Amino acid sequence: MLNASTAFQTMTAEEAAEFIHHGDVIGASGFTPSGYPKVIPGALAARATRWHEDGKPFRVSLYTGASTGDELDGVLARAHALSRRLPYQSNPDVRAGINAGEIEFTDMHLSHVAQMVRWGFLPKPTVALVEAVDVTADGRIYLSASGGASASYLQTADRILIELNSFYGRGLKGYHDVYIPEDMPHRQTIPLLHSGDRIGTDYVQVDPSKIKAIVETNLADRSGGFREPDQESKTIAAHILAFLKQERKLGRLHSEQPYQSGVGNVANAVLGSMAADPAQEPVSIYTEVMQDSVIELLLHDKLVVASGAAMTLSPACQLQWKANMDAWRNKFVIRQMEISNSPGIARRLGIIAMNTALELDIFGNVNSTHVMGTKMMNGIGGSGDFTRNAFLPIFMTPSTAKGGAISSIVPMVTHVDHTEHDTMIFVTEQGLADVRGMGPERRAREIIEKCAHPDFRPLLLDYLEAGLRSGSRHTPVTLSRAFEFHNRFLETGSMQY
Amino acid sequence: MLNASTAFQTMTAEEAAEFIHHGDVIGASGFTPSGYPKVIPGALAARATRWHEDGKPFRVSLYTGASTGDELDGVLARAHALSRRLPYQSNPDVRAGINAGEIEFTDMHLSHVAQMVRWGFLPKPTVALVEAVDVTADGRIYLSASGGASASYLQTADRILIELNSFYGRGLKGYHDVYIPEDMPHRQTIPLLHSGDRIGTDYVQVDPSKIKAIVETNLADRSGGFREPDQESKTIAAHILAFLKQERKLGRLHSEQPYQSGVGNVANAVLGSMAADPAQEPVSIYTEVMQDSVIELLLHDKLVVASGAAMTLSPACQLQWKANMDAWRNKFVIRQMEISNSPGIARRLGIIAMNTALELDIFGNVNSTHVMGTKMMNGIGGSGDFTRNAFLPIFMTPSTAKGGAISSIVPMVTHVDHTEHDTMIFVTEQGLADVRGMGPERRAREIIEKCAHPDFRPLLLDYLEAGLRSGSRHTPVTLSRAFEFHNRFLETGSMQY
Repeated sequence: MLNASTAFQTMTAEEAAEFIHHGDVIGASGFTPSGYPKVIPGALAARATRWHEDGKPFRVSLYTGASTGDELDGVLARAHALSRRLPYQSNPDVRAGINAGEIEFTDMHLSHVAQMVRWGFLPKPTVALVEAVDVTADGRIYLSASGGASASYLQTADRILIELNSFYGRGLKGYHDVYIPEDMPHRQTIPLLHSGDRIGTDYVQVDPSKIKAIVETNLADRSGGFREPDQESKTIAAHILAFLKQERKLGRLHSEQPYQSGVGNVANAVLGSMAADPAQEPVSIYTEVMQDSVIELLLHDKLVVASGAAMTLSPACQLQWKANMDAWRNKFVIRQMEISNSPGIARRLGIIAMNTALELDIFGNVNSTHVMGTKMMNGIGGSGDFTRNAFLPIFMTPSTAKGGAISSIVPMVTHVDHTEHDTMIFVTEQGLADVRGMGPERRAREIIEKCAHPDFRPLLLDYLEAGLRSGSRHTPVTLSRAFEFHNRFLETGSMQY
Repeated sequence: MLNASTAFQTMTAEEAAEFIHHGDVIGASGFTPSGYPKVIPGALAARATRWHEDGKPFRVSLYTGASTGDELDGVLARAHALSRRLPYQSNPDVRAGINAGEIEFTDMHLSHVAQMVRWGFLPKPTVALVEAVDVTADGRIYLSASGGASASYLQTADRILIELNSFYGRGLKGYHDVYIPEDMPHRQTIPLLHSGDRIGTDYVQVDPSKIKAIVETNLADRSGGFREPDQESKTIAAHILAFLKQERKLGRLHSEQPYQSGVGNVANAVLGSMAADPAQEPVSIYTEVMQDSVIELLLHDKLVVASGAAMTLSPACQLQWKANMDAWRNKFVIRQMEISNSPGIARRLGIIAMNTALELDIFGNVNSTHVMGTKMMNGIGGSGDFTRNAFLPIFMTPSTAKGGAISSIVPMVTHVDHTEHDTMIFVTEQGLADVRGMGPERRAREIIEKCAHPDFRPLLLDYLEAGLRSGSRHTPVTLSRAFEFHNRFLETGSMQY
């Protein structure tokens, strides 16, 4: 069957999957469960399983924007068809494969990925597997709900497989802004001065002869949506909003500076609280993932414009977006993650960055990735791109986990993703620590007093004081005790003493 | 006495020091022993000592570009006149004061400093203390041999004290390029596309009424110069140059991409080897500190242009520069460190960054600052600004220290300044590890095999294998053993087993 707007033959997912071979490197669309291919991976997983049953190897590398839906990550992991994965994931089966040593995972700053692919620093994608809303005969590919690194995968790979999804359909055209920086030594300034600036095209241009398959679908992104924020999240959000108000009052923050917020309920609660606050001025968003709360801001007339690498909406919000495609087009820009996460742009715009810490230590180092220093959770994602270059980098986390057995504030984090040099503001439900300009000892006292749970404050202070007695008084670390919280947890199931 | 070109009264250092009071925050020029004030600090130290003898407190905060000369850092530390220091230092007496808990030290990415000062995120400098080669009646200040953060200190402080140094004198005018990015939300793109681009003025404009004192001097920067590279440094340099040649051959590196090199003998050896290689094409430098090796490149017709925050030359090279001031003016640009270290520019230019690690771990995390996790050495300086944004970030270190008692490659670094997400290439005299795109286990095997000293390889492999047996196979860390090398050293004086 010929696709209406193109000269390309459409085919089944099973037929398309035949274009993918053992050893291929797939560069796929998808950034969070948004805009990822939904049917070819399932067919590929079945193909891999048949090969495995015949005693033959069949494994591929998978590069994406970030995490994706189960129809891509989950099916391939369960078919044991993944040899390698980058740069981020959050699927339970992929995570299990990584921690079992079956899947090699490269945990990367998202802003690095596309350029490292183009420069040949990573094995070259052989297949681009991308969801789109339209494809033209001359090779213009209009991406669906996420930007990710799709443009660079499409330009680098030799074979292009497209899932043409009519769920949003062509109404989505015009939302994307595709810009790829020039290669060295000819790279120019990226001419983006405001969150909403459009600096590229709304499609990816490819050589049409590389398009090997088009599979038609009509499927929503499988996004669970977000829970109603709990009391803890609301308290954290309230601390952050009070702090930002104070900064405004002190003349240290301008209302036009954009917000970046990580994925999750606390981040959603902050933007949700802004939407609900009648005194809140309209805000700009320059982020990775545009979630439901961005729609909430829009509906409360509190959104100037939002820019990100993906629209990741709950089923209800997906329908709302679909119904308002034309009206909302000037309110959203979907970018390639090289631009949404660009360090230079984050610094230029003066973003307020809000990200979640897995654990943080009293000196302000943050672990975003490794449970007990060894088990991969999801990956660093864009938190590093934003944190180091933000005007105000904020890390948030509940002060305890597992019913109080785990303290999120520890003597030393078991893995460092954000160093003491990168961080400024920490928030738990206990309060907010502003450590800007402080040396390590003062920072430790501020974090313990403002952020740690009262159950753990004496233990943290005891560690600090012991370090001050025995080590250097600059950063009073005691190596033999640095992981005492974690080792106690591993032995007894609790960090409590 | 009226200064020749200005309407300002000149005075003695002692008179000028009277303008500085207990509790002041001094924003000083100086970046490495280059372009720092040389006589007022001594007078200030004497003033502080008199106050102390009278039983009165006298301490100031000192912000600079980076480390400075002993005539600034040393004299104030020995007079116990420093309460606070940022963002970098390398003076033995300052270091001792920091580790004793007497001086609060904030160890910062150098690119962050000036903007945090302007934004009011750090206590505001009350006094700017700056070395210059000329001052005009309408308030144009022509800086001496370093840029540092002087422009922002001069614009922020209420009182300005100038040391007018005739050692280089007015011949140095035209070397600086002073550019301060706009404040939020009006910041523009920084229009720098090549190492040698000039985008600002060659002076700092201040309100002349703020200039309280001018002290005339005629003093050289007290720079020790660098030792002739030893065999180890030469071997490391050879590994790096062979790697870069290979990258050129593979078409993955363009000859116009500029080099950044940290301070020290290994860095100097790399550029020195380039200068000595007849096959080497001329190179561009975009760095912090322009050292003797840059002059060597120039003299061998191998320098396109060099840009940095300071000219830090040995006494012999200082004289050579002085004799060639006019001829060399188009070969060098001295910048404010906010621009020399800008993440956006480093990424745009595609720099090759070469910095020294104190220690690194098998997973590619780097410690640049803390001995045994607690004692501050110098600070992170610009290594983070460059490493994360470089085209090719390279860390180098001899594989052992203290006659083989210490391995520079350890199971876990005791302080993380550069995370596994930021690093790519490691070099010791043993060899070069290229871990681009590798997951943690493969990275560990590459680093152990290529970089670790043979004496320590079995111990490191044993740690890795134990982690693979007991922990997650993603990052096989064993918390209870993570610091076994360091604890053994603390107990026995050697990391050897």
